[in-house]
Amino acid sequence: MIRAGIIGATGYAGNELVRLLTAHKETEIVWYGSRSYTGEKYASVYRNMFQLVEDECLDDKIEELAGEADVIFTATPQGFLAGVLSEDILKQVKVVDLSADFRIKDVSVYESWYRIAHKSPQFIGEAVYGLCEINREKVKRARLVANPGCYTTCSILTAYPLVKEGLIDTDTLIIDAKSGTSGAGRGAKLPNLFCEVNENIKAYGVTSHRHTPEIEEQLGYAAGKQVTVNFTPHLVPMNRGILVTEYASLKKKADGSLPAYEEIKAVYDKYFEKEKFVRVLEKDICPETKWVEGSNYVDVNFTIDERTGRIIMMGALDNLVKGAAGQAVQNMNLLFGLDEAEGLDLVPVFP
Amino acid sequence: MIRAGIIGATGYAGNELVRLLTAHKETEIVWYGSRSYTGEKYASVYRNMFQLVEDECLDDKIEELAGEADVIFTATPQGFLAGVLSEDILKQVKVVDLSADFRIKDVSVYESWYRIAHKSPQFIGEAVYGLCEINREKVKRARLVANPGCYTTCSILTAYPLVKEGLIDTDTLIIDAKSGTSGAGRGAKLPNLFCEVNENIKAYGVTSHRHTPEIEEQLGYAAGKQVTVNFTPHLVPMNRGILVTEYASLKKKADGSLPAYEEIKAVYDKYFEKEKFVRVLEKDICPETKWVEGSNYVDVNFTIDERTGRIIMMGALDNLVKGAAGQAVQNMNLLFGLDEAEGLDLVPVFP
Amino acid sequence: MIRAGIIGATGYAGNELVRLLTAHKETEIVWYGSRSYTGEKYASVYRNMFQLVEDECLDDKIEELAGEADVIFTATPQGFLAGVLSEDILKQVKVVDLSADFRIKDVSVYESWYRIAHKSPQFIGEAVYGLCEINREKVKRARLVANPGCYTTCSILTAYPLVKEGLIDTDTLIIDAKSGTSGAGRGAKLPNLFCEVNENIKAYGVTSHRHTPEIEEQLGYAAGKQVTVNFTPHLVPMNRGILVTEYASLKKKADGSLPAYEEIKAVYDKYFEKEKFVRVLEKDICPETKWVEGSNYVDVNFTIDERTGRIIMMGALDNLVKGAAGQAVQNMNLLFGLDEAEGLDLVPVFP
Amino acid sequence: MIRAGIIGATGYAGNELVRLLTAHKETEIVWYGSRSYTGEKYASVYRNMFQLVEDECLDDKIEELAGEADVIFTATPQGFLAGVLSEDILKQVKVVDLSADFRIKDVSVYESWYRIAHKSPQFIGEAVYGLCEINREKVKRARLVANPGCYTTCSILTAYPLVKEGLIDTDTLIIDAKSGTSGAGRGAKLPNLFCEVNENIKAYGVTSHRHTPEIEEQLGYAAGKQVTVNFTPHLVPMNRGILVTEYASLKKKADGSLPAYEEIKAVYDKYFEKEKFVRVLEKDICPETKWVEGSNYVDVNFTIDERTGRIIMMGALDNLVKGAAGQAVQNMNLLFGLDEAEGLDLVPVFP
Repeated sequence: MIRAGIIGATGYAGNELVRLLTAHKETEIVWYGSRSYTGEKYASVYRNMFQLVEDECLDDKIEELAGEADVIFTATPQGFLAGVLSEDILKQVKVVDLSADFRIKDVSVYESWYRIAHKSPQFIGEAVYGLCEINREKVKRARLVANPGCYTTCSILTAYPLVKEGLIDTDTLIIDAKSGTSGAGRGAKLPNLFCEVNENIKAYGVTSHRHTPEIEEQLGYAAGKQVTVNFTPHLVPMNRGILVTEYASLKKKADGSLPAYEEIKAVYDKYFEKEKFVRVLEKDICPETKWVEGSNYVDVNFTIDERTGRIIMMGALDNLVKGAAGQAVQNMNLLFGLDEAEGLDLVPVFP
Repeated sequence: MIRAGIIGATGYAGNELVRLLTAHKETEIVWYGSRSYTGEKYASVYRNMFQLVEDECLDDKIEELAGEADVIFTATPQGFLAGVLSEDILKQVKVVDLSADFRIKDVSVYESWYRIAHKSPQFIGEAVYGLCEINREKVKRARLVANPGCYTTCSILTAYPLVKEGLIDTDTLIIDAKSGTSGAGRGAKLPNLFCEVNENIKAYGVTSHRHTPEIEEQLGYAAGKQVTVNFTPHLVPMNRGILVTEYASLKKKADGSLPAYEEIKAVYDKYFEKEKFVRVLEKDICPETKWVEGSNYVDVNFTIDERTGRIIMMGALDNLVKGAAGQAVQNMNLLFGLDEAEGLDLVPVFP
Repeated sequence: MIRAGIIGATGYAGNELVRLLTAHKETEIVWYGSRSYTGEKYASVYRNMFQLVEDECLDDKIEELAGEADVIFTATPQGFLAGVLSEDILKQVKVVDLSADFRIKDVSVYESWYRIAHKSPQFIGEAVYGLCEINREKVKRARLVANPGCYTTCSILTAYPLVKEGLIDTDTLIIDAKSGTSGAGRGAKLPNLFCEVNENIKAYGVTSHRHTPEIEEQLGYAAGKQVTVNFTPHLVPMNRGILVTEYASLKKKADGSLPAYEEIKAVYDKYFEKEKFVRVLEKDICPETKWVEGSNYVDVNFTIDERTGRIIMMGALDNLVKGAAGQAVQNMNLLFGLDEAEGLDLVPVFP
Repeated sequence: MIRAGIIGATGYAGNELVRLLTAHKETEIVWYGSRSYTGEKYASVYRNMFQLVEDECLDDKIEELAGEADVIFTATPQGFLAGVLSEDILKQVKVVDLSADFRIKDVSVYESWYRIAHKSPQFIGEAVYGLCEINREKVKRARLVANPGCYTTCSILTAYPLVKEGLIDTDTLIIDAKSGTSGAGRGAKLPNLFCEVNENIKAYGVTSHRHTPEIEEQLGYAAGKQVTVNFTPHLVPMNRGILVTEYASLKKKADGSLPAYEEIKAVYDKYFEKEKFVRVLEKDICPETKWVEGSNYVDVNFTIDERTGRIIMMGALDNLVKGAAGQAVQNMNLLFGLDEAEGLDLVPVFP
């Protein structure tokens, strides 16, 4: 059994990790870390876990935890892991970090978008960006995995094949994203109150959302050149789910025409046909967040607009599963040589 | 592998059966029956099943199905199964009926509340009311299981220990129930449109809801005498979940006092402590539908009111799981000698 | 023009007062009191008011306000008004209190349920309970109006005619109430977060909700004797609306039969036919909160259950209008001799 | 009093017209037309109108209605008005058409996007596109007003000043729109069921939504040249509200720099400062649909992205008010020489 510790177990992503790891055959949770609820029973913080989890919440002493666990998940605020990580820890235990601390290779970019100093830049180099479908082999050999952001996982996978194959003009790429409210966390803040979110939709973080540089970096690797995008998130009155709608100009073919549907579809299939967790939908079917809820799937599809020469790409996932805890477990499976889908055979819950 | 056929696979309960049986290790689905969608791919009716189910929908020829399956689930309108069931079918296959056709022993009561003639009353006698926690042993020996209604499962289990032990005056029992909208089915009806249900709550079927006689019959067995209740369902703007709030006068003890909390708690524990799927919550914790969503749990609790001499009992479940498909699978497990919880180790999804 | 001051203008009820008074032809708001937002523009706290309200929030100095206003609305926490009210204030200005401070005549009952000491019991005697349909004439002559609670307005009006006429056994009265989330206020508390409320329903304050003694006192006046009830509130995932479902045993007539529908209907009509804001619905139509949203209406109706001898009474209102700000304006209209419906001709908003 | 007739009074837009006209001081409704509910009481179709509307629904005989009304609103399916309109009708009565029949000047464009033949193209020329803020003077002199679509009103007004002043490259304009579900109408269709919409978001009509040519035509007039856009609508789990997020490249100034915030703001103010119903928000405040709910306001704002050279424009309105019935009343006010805001002093309802 893999002994797993969670630091930040009482946030929504932490609770989803508990849900998934509780059902995972090869794992036992040995540490429910929560600075806010230290000493309280976990099941009194998340009553869905009544009779399923008997443990109390522990604090966030990662060094102690490193001696008791085989893998540590950190579902913590930005800066936490960078502030406490050490070579000593990484020698003892694998770390899957759900925060952004080790996602971005250029520390100045990190510090500029997150407005905090990075406390352990020496580990950025070895950290593997844990987008499993792209970096699978690297993850298998890693000590430290930077689990991708929810918006970024969806944004990158939706465009990846076309960027990688150079079929779109990345200078024209615009990502309009919509997220359920669990992405905002469990903090008691006025804008997240039921009456403020319900029956409402708004954009936020326009031109300044922190997932922007992460998307740009990863798509930049695919494109082989710098990519700069507009990324606009919106808050939707639902608990779970992210939908991205991405716009880009298709490059014309030698004869001046646009690629046909079948040509684009073949490119998506080239990258995703064998991927269990990425489903390229049938022609003209638009992804819906409800169809992936509770599961580790990303559903993607596209429509070509002959009138404007653009392609509209769409992707949907559950922000707490493939967008956070599910992908973290997928990374753990890779780190420990398990079947990548172990514990992730989650059939989407509808309705 | 148990070969399972579903008639009525494209209703919400049918889809939940597909979700649960797809993940069930001992079962394969051999028949996706749907009169409305015969010939269409199942995954085009429920796109959550894309790449998970490749089959097309079949019609509802139960006699043919009986030759191909070990168990048939009928998630069909009232009267369907009674209209087609035969000794020949029951000799070949186990039947778990999610409709009300065989729940009520007195055929005149059935016909009076459901306003249809019962076409095969000869099977009513042998049908076992599949409330597993109460009728476990009978289910194991049954050919035909009448899977309980969603409201009834919640209403009965919430009050059962006190009725069985004679601690409440059943003449005073009032059940105020609240349900998510999936209980209304997937039929395209104006009252179930988003804009009609959202931001709204209403009672319906006041004094006339068909689950009333089912509750009365089962609680009557527990009480050892006729029970007549008020049952009032309400429609709540959420997808899943049933909450019942039940009121009854506590019988006073010999000394004229009311039972203490601990005495009542002990009675609940007597019946439910060993039940995996019934969770008696800690003191003063009110059940919430969200804490059981997606799972087979029923959460129950109670509060004693010294001022009025009444006890307020509360219960919560997911109407599509313990209230329908989950309990049907639980019954199937019993029918085939499997671990009762096989395929039902579902951790509640929160949020 | 009536000069109105609001203390507690930045709660949900306060904002609704601003909405109604802004559209009221005979009123101008001279004071937007808010301890939390003193010095901020009101429209930056409630952006629906952008370009409609230019004022900044002021503090809660009621003595200063008394010199500038004709009427003061206090939409404040329990105990605030009792702590600051004085004869000097009441000599200058009418006060409509939306808190519970002056609703309950027996100060020990208030102190027992609210768990705070009452700082100015000397004004309890003269305070008029502002349930306009019942106490209209008293309100006209009052200096201090105790605006009823949201649950209580709905609970009382729904049962009032039958209690007043002695048609039900008040010892059997049970009130099961369901409320939208705005009733919980705008405080940033975890249980009111979107993800905690959405897709969820629960009871709370079982046997202990503070509106219980208020209901009991008022129905006691109607009954001419002490009334003790069970009152159970539930939190519903919607912004606005309260629905009550009330159960009571009908008294039998001299011949041992239950009253007929027409007899009960006539009693409701006797009290409400001429009331603009109470709509007794047509036979078999259940009240829905959506049909009164945004308006000052209370919709009521009932069903007689011959089987149990009980009557099920139902009522629906908008908790922020007839349940708070709308009734407060209705009281103001009475206090100043205006048409009682002035500013309250609000057509319900659907959907 | 203006006598108003409504054909299509039982759709959601029709019901909103009834709400607004019922409260309008200068209007009386003389005809509640509804093909589906002819002969039924209007208030039994929309119970919010109980005791407010006593009339029965009439059929859709527009010629008879023309003799009884001063203005006819048609909230009808595409093709209805074009099929029945005549010179005789227009000689007797003003017509405000909420369908698309007379919005598009080029009949072949209409027929291509709507896939129906236009039955009375002879009236297209005189029809005035009733976007009041743009065509106010033309509306005043019209007989036939084509009331704009919900998405189009929001999309056009949000970008209008910058298009009109030539500040953006219209070839780069992308409109990502999000709508509440009332926009889908009251038809009983499976995709609009509560359980299908709730907890879900999806795009639909990608590259093919019928509001596209309407936006292009109107923005084309502003630009003085043909405009072709991507317009992608999304369905959001809320009743009311449209939010648009629009992306376009800013034209650089002579010195190669982008315009400053203040320069863009000045352009918005030039067009909207005196417009009662268009609110240009303060810097960095993103429009939210909740802040305009129930009112006739459009809230707009923008953010400049120095990194990409694009401007992100945002707009929010209530699709049933400014997006349909409210704008129709605004047009009626113009047609009859009333104060343009008569009956539209609706304070947004929050929450």
